[in-house]
Amino acid sequence: MVDLKTMGQQARESSKILRNLNRETKDEVLIALADQIAASQDLILAANAKDVTLAQQNGLQPALLERLRLDESRLLGIADDVRKVAALKDPVGEIFDSQVLPNGLGVHKQRVPLGVLAVIYESRPNVTVDVASLALKSGNAVILRGGKETLHSNCALVQVIHQALETCGIPVTAVQFIDSSDRALVMELLQMNDAVDMLIPRGGAGLHRFCRENSRIPVITGGIGICHLFVDESADRSAALRIIQNAKVQRPTVCNALDTVLVHRAIAGEFIPALVDYLEEDGVQLKMDPKALQCAVGLTGADERVAPADPEDFDREWLSLVLGVCVVAGLDEAIAHIEAHSTGHSDGILTRDEEHAKRFIQLVDSAVVYVNASTRFTDGAQLGLGAEVAISTQRLHARGPMALEALTTYKWVIEGEGHIRPD
Amino acid sequence: MVDLKTMGQQARESSKILRNLNRETKDEVLIALADQIAASQDLILAANAKDVTLAQQNGLQPALLERLRLDESRLLGIADDVRKVAALKDPVGEIFDSQVLPNGLGVHKQRVPLGVLAVIYESRPNVTVDVASLALKSGNAVILRGGKETLHSNCALVQVIHQALETCGIPVTAVQFIDSSDRALVMELLQMNDAVDMLIPRGGAGLHRFCRENSRIPVITGGIGICHLFVDESADRSAALRIIQNAKVQRPTVCNALDTVLVHRAIAGEFIPALVDYLEEDGVQLKMDPKALQCAVGLTGADERVAPADPEDFDREWLSLVLGVCVVAGLDEAIAHIEAHSTGHSDGILTRDEEHAKRFIQLVDSAVVYVNASTRFTDGAQLGLGAEVAISTQRLHARGPMALEALTTYKWVIEGEGHIRPD
Repeated sequence: MVDLKTMGQQARESSKILRNLNRETKDEVLIALADQIAASQDLILAANAKDVTLAQQNGLQPALLERLRLDESRLLGIADDVRKVAALKDPVGEIFDSQVLPNGLGVHKQRVPLGVLAVIYESRPNVTVDVASLALKSGNAVILRGGKETLHSNCALVQVIHQALETCGIPVTAVQFIDSSDRALVMELLQMNDAVDMLIPRGGAGLHRFCRENSRIPVITGGIGICHLFVDESADRSAALRIIQNAKVQRPTVCNALDTVLVHRAIAGEFIPALVDYLEEDGVQLKMDPKALQCAVGLTGADERVAPADPEDFDREWLSLVLGVCVVAGLDEAIAHIEAHSTGHSDGILTRDEEHAKRFIQLVDSAVVYVNASTRFTDGAQLGLGAEVAISTQRLHARGPMALEALTTYKWVIEGEGHIRPD
Repeated sequence: MVDLKTMGQQARESSKILRNLNRETKDEVLIALADQIAASQDLILAANAKDVTLAQQNGLQPALLERLRLDESRLLGIADDVRKVAALKDPVGEIFDSQVLPNGLGVHKQRVPLGVLAVIYESRPNVTVDVASLALKSGNAVILRGGKETLHSNCALVQVIHQALETCGIPVTAVQFIDSSDRALVMELLQMNDAVDMLIPRGGAGLHRFCRENSRIPVITGGIGICHLFVDESADRSAALRIIQNAKVQRPTVCNALDTVLVHRAIAGEFIPALVDYLEEDGVQLKMDPKALQCAVGLTGADERVAPADPEDFDREWLSLVLGVCVVAGLDEAIAHIEAHSTGHSDGILTRDEEHAKRFIQLVDSAVVYVNASTRFTDGAQLGLGAEVAISTQRLHARGPMALEALTTYKWVIEGEGHIRPD
């Protein structure tokens, strides 16, 4: 029996201690955690092996099984990431927007932790450590609810986190884990707006919708990416091919993977056959609109890998080696297509025309807008944030990759010398 | 029949135009609006007179009636506030956090409008114009839902706003008004998370709770202030009396008005009688805990104005000329009292001890923390923001007075030269 109410109260209490820790203490906990992960390898890998066996018995998809599996090198990678978080600047206490008002009042803002976070997530066990370390570094308590297929791994990792906290004299209730797959608990968690300040669901669209519809806690939604690249008339063709390949093929199951290529009609006749050819070795399936299809008719090998797109295909996040291809009349039609079909995650233009790049940046309102680069850079570590707790595609609070600063808020500090407000 | 769905779609469509307007155009609309308000005085005041008559017939409380009533000078004040918003810096387009990553990728964030706002508010008609002008200046569309007691005034003001928009060739759907007191519409509005990006309820605790519990749109809650001032042992006594009077008496019905004074026990015997005396002319009623009461026993006139506090009195936002008084053992007990009873709006310390001031700032986690000043400064205009759409006491997105910047988000812009992510 998980008593969520008590868990919430304990999280709130420990957040009051965490928010006043100095950087040294927080880094000490993180380094203890990294050491402890390395020292507890056997324990963690044994727990993970149990999860893997169960998952195999339950017929989990190979891609998900792959995400779930830990080995020594992955585990050391996780420990290393914790050390990287320790090395990051502490956002808490930062002072900004300082001013002295004409009446002499001193005013500034001071960055403080959000308080208590709750994160609901699926298979990957590294998320447990990533989120816990970012939460601790930013002075927040956290309640974690991982997927049932990673239960043993997560319990072992949380045990290790608790050992590190204890070593440093921090209450273990700073990081709590809901070790139950009872879905009713999620509903109960969503009502705990007094105890929890921010809820991050990490998973499919269904989980996000469920949280959006039922949560009294402010929710950060994101992680769903229907991502586009527009190949403009002036694009460097060979760079475009490389970028499209990287964005589509490197890791097709993640949210920043490419879903649709929009090709300027002036170059479609040449570029689309080249694209079909370039992606042959990677086995990418291409779903084409009628104009694109015309450009691919009769190509060697195209029969097997090229197919007409259904209209709704341009509203699908593929998460696999499938790529939509669409011919557009030019920049404005490309922007209109993105406006209509993008989830506002990551969209880019490949061009040598500076005016077109500017116009694209101005008019495409996605969390991350690219010029001449792969959408795969939408990632906290790639963008210098150290790690990420989520990639937000909503507009409130934080957008795009969220890391330490996104786990803080601020207070206003107003210092006077007996100031009263005049009538 | 209000068709909210169409309203939402129109707001979304017009937000796409608004987000790309340059500063000049937006300021032009605002100046046209200010002019139009002045030119339409008769129309607006006649509509307001209807509301006032109806409110009197319905027995509206005098304080609310006072909030509702417009006259020529108030109306010119409202027009003036619009001009002030026009004079503010446009936050949209601001570039920040620029960096070039080691791999040569250029990365920056660019401030963009939130999109579509919805604001639910009560009696004061000036809110209609304040919110509309801040929304327009920050490039957002807005759906307004005012109180039924201000319906005629609001309809007249919205008509004037629409004239200003038309004059400048901006779709009138940029500012839409739900001219119905049907409460079912509020419930329907709360489900429109596809059309609306941020919901701001401005009203009592009941409205906030209702929105928090039922909204699928991200909600900003706030505006409920149980505000404290701690009079430390070293406080400048006469400054303390002036500050307390200002914070309590100047406008007792607003959220930044003082609710509880905490007095250091070392000075309570002297300070509390002085306080009772100082607030006599203003007719402030004092609700005291047992220790404070002891200090007030036998004072002239105290019988009528001093009464023992019920324990729950320290959890009430008075919104009237009542003030709680509590004696505390010192700084830590004052901080603990605030932690237990504050709504996290505005809390302050009056002291000449710098270490105590520092400790108070560090440990009190309210939206606005004060040293030696009145809590009445928690106000967008007072803090140089020009105006405010709300005072947030939640932790996500924005805290304290919210104005133009709080109505924006940002996008990441990543510029490469054919960059792909390495394996």
